[in-house]
Amino acid sequence: MPTGDRGWTVLTCYACGRAAESGQRCPDCGEPLWFDTDPVDFAWPDRDGVWAFADLLPAEAPGSGLAAAAGATPLIRAPGLDADGARVHVKLEGTNPTGSFKDRGSAVGVAAAVARDAGTAGVAGGERGGEAEAPTAVGTVSHGNMAASMAAHAASAGIDCVVLVPADISAGRLDRIAAYGPRIVRVDGDYGRLYYDALDLGPEAGIAFVNSDSPLRVAGQKTTVLEVLRAFAAGEAGEVGGHGTPEAAPSSAMPDAVVMPVSSGGHASAAWKAVRETTAAGLLDDPPRLYFVQASACAPVADAFARGDDAVTRLEADEVDETVAYSIANPDPPSGTRALRAARNAGGAVLAVDDDAIRTARRDLAAAGMRVEAASATTLAGLRRLRERDEVDAGEHVVLVATGVGYGGDGDAGAADAETVALEGLTAALGVGDE
Amino acid sequence: MPTGDRGWTVLTCYACGRAAESGQRCPDCGEPLWFDTDPVDFAWPDRDGVWAFADLLPAEAPGSGLAAAAGATPLIRAPGLDADGARVHVKLEGTNPTGSFKDRGSAVGVAAAVARDAGTAGVAGGERGGEAEAPTAVGTVSHGNMAASMAAHAASAGIDCVVLVPADISAGRLDRIAAYGPRIVRVDGDYGRLYYDALDLGPEAGIAFVNSDSPLRVAGQKTTVLEVLRAFAAGEAGEVGGHGTPEAAPSSAMPDAVVMPVSSGGHASAAWKAVRETTAAGLLDDPPRLYFVQASACAPVADAFARGDDAVTRLEADEVDETVAYSIANPDPPSGTRALRAARNAGGAVLAVDDDAIRTARRDLAAAGMRVEAASATTLAGLRRLRERDEVDAGEHVVLVATGVGYGGDGDAGAADAETVALEGLTAALGVGDE
Repeated sequence: MPTGDRGWTVLTCYACGRAAESGQRCPDCGEPLWFDTDPVDFAWPDRDGVWAFADLLPAEAPGSGLAAAAGATPLIRAPGLDADGARVHVKLEGTNPTGSFKDRGSAVGVAAAVARDAGTAGVAGGERGGEAEAPTAVGTVSHGNMAASMAAHAASAGIDCVVLVPADISAGRLDRIAAYGPRIVRVDGDYGRLYYDALDLGPEAGIAFVNSDSPLRVAGQKTTVLEVLRAFAAGEAGEVGGHGTPEAAPSSAMPDAVVMPVSSGGHASAAWKAVRETTAAGLLDDPPRLYFVQASACAPVADAFARGDDAVTRLEADEVDETVAYSIANPDPPSGTRALRAARNAGGAVLAVDDDAIRTARRDLAAAGMRVEAASATTLAGLRRLRERDEVDAGEHVVLVATGVGYGGDGDAGAADAETVALEGLTAALGVGDE
Repeated sequence: MPTGDRGWTVLTCYACGRAAESGQRCPDCGEPLWFDTDPVDFAWPDRDGVWAFADLLPAEAPGSGLAAAAGATPLIRAPGLDADGARVHVKLEGTNPTGSFKDRGSAVGVAAAVARDAGTAGVAGGERGGEAEAPTAVGTVSHGNMAASMAAHAASAGIDCVVLVPADISAGRLDRIAAYGPRIVRVDGDYGRLYYDALDLGPEAGIAFVNSDSPLRVAGQKTTVLEVLRAFAAGEAGEVGGHGTPEAAPSSAMPDAVVMPVSSGGHASAAWKAVRETTAAGLLDDPPRLYFVQASACAPVADAFARGDDAVTRLEADEVDETVAYSIANPDPPSGTRALRAARNAGGAVLAVDDDAIRTARRDLAAAGMRVEAASATTLAGLRRLRERDEVDAGEHVVLVATGVGYGGDGDAGAADAETVALEGLTAALGVGDE
């Protein structure tokens, strides 16, 4: 089998076991590939951050720039959010440099592209990657967090970046991406098809597309759950971000469950990969169950899970509604089937929650001090459903992955309610002398 | 002299040396007080985060919640921003949980209020603090980053929070604060006076006001520079956030200069305190010069520095213009004179930069992958002025403190420029087959 510089099989297909030297999708069954690391000698690092897990990554840590700032996000024990006795920890991914977990994958993707390393064959993307020239630019198909993240990391590394967005992108989204100076191409046509078109075009155009479930992105994004597991293993999970004074120690050494939003399935796949690798390394005797949550308005993975299907079926336009959790509304998730497999394999589930439940959860997260985008609030809404269904028990430690902070302007902060007083009336308004 | 539980004099006045058991301003000279720690036995911790420096803080680390997530922000070596040979490092404070350095001070202020600790006499605020009841709420006078930060930390800790805002606050700002559920009071009158009114009212109303330069806030916010110095001392400054592979080692063990925006003077005072304490601890042989930057439109501290004055003079309404760096436009900075003293004492300067220079610097930071609010971009604009004036030399290592990420909607992201192509035309647009 072909092996990279790090001594492990470069890419494999989780579904059929096929190994490949390059590309992003399995030449045999079409499912997404990932890097098949050799974690046997892996031991927990003493700190967080994407590159703290470099032994399990297909790229080397850059010496400067934004890349190495990815990850090392706080893990917050939030008793105020406990769900009928289930103990809640929040992994606050919005504190990444561009505000979402996407920075983890972008850091690895851009580092690999810059290095044009023999061990990172996946970077060129596309089935024809092996024969193509080394990339001269990175690219992505996104008009949200991933687009901003890729543009920022490419800018920091001094490499060109091409972002393919839908023709009708809003001015606000466009501005957020444009700030980092990438080449932005509005594409008029079926935006869903672009994911696949980009994989085909990338190698010939010299653009390394790091899309939502590219092997490099999945490798970087597995560090979200690696950090969670490391913190629990180190007994830091009662603390926050590794810095506080430990609270009462968790009942178990490891979390009982991890709850994440699922969109493309890339991050969900990465969570599964993290659990598989640490189990193989002998560091995880009792792996957490993995739960993935969608918005009911667009829930192809949850639908497949509920039906007991083996694969996710693409939703058509008339089967999808609007949702406040727009950033995870993906009707045709390229790693959806892999996410489905991950949930089943890890003893969890894929579920859907409605917009009312998402809005309530989002308000409750803010009332506990954590501002997150609606997509991230699906995790708390999902946990509440799981408690109702007794799929999570009282006393269990559950980690909610709050994937991003969002960027305002979505009018869901709650109607601001404030009294007005004259300066002279402030003493009375604050109740001085009342008691 | 009165000492707290930690064995150090609780509060002192930097200007006249007066010690005090409580209060926020010196009963003799009116200048702001700060906690006078005993750093002789202090040694560098092995990691970042506000509570990693607990030996120098007037509060204990909470065991859960948002507090312990404050700090531990990345320090990014950014060669693309080097200023005519001066080597730039950026301390990216926007990755704090609510998006600014204010979380450091809020974490300490709220923790102290919750603990109502004998060692935290400063918490009750106001000259009459010593006789007042223990606070039942925290408060702040702010309609920006500090308001959101205090509201979030209070929400997480389960303590009431009162935010005093100007009557004409914008809906966007109000929503950002209201998301965390504090009591918001719009005050109709002279907003500048509120800072002092709040200190007077706080103790009687049972509200611990943690304003921009309160002793508790300054204590928490000194960890910004403590983290910078720790990273340099540990040889991590060529890395990013402590995780990367070291670049070429810095020419000096410590940074040559630190550049920060200055508004109230609270953060600037905290930087000075960090340098004083680590020098007293024998950890800093060659302290960095401290430079503080204002927007020309409202620059009372820079004006006083330029005139060689001993104190800052309050600007009247007709002496102030609008600026893109609105979050640091403070015409009457309560710790302005202390900041002035800090710059002189630390061999630095206070300077002003115009809005064009700020806009350019902000665009350049984004083009290096770092999105920051305009106030933070004054640091890069300021460094460029300092290089022109030869106050910073080529080869020197300079840390820019990018204080906050900002929250969009300020229309300064740069006009988005994007081509549109039909899906069928994408291959040609990406240049496939051109070569």
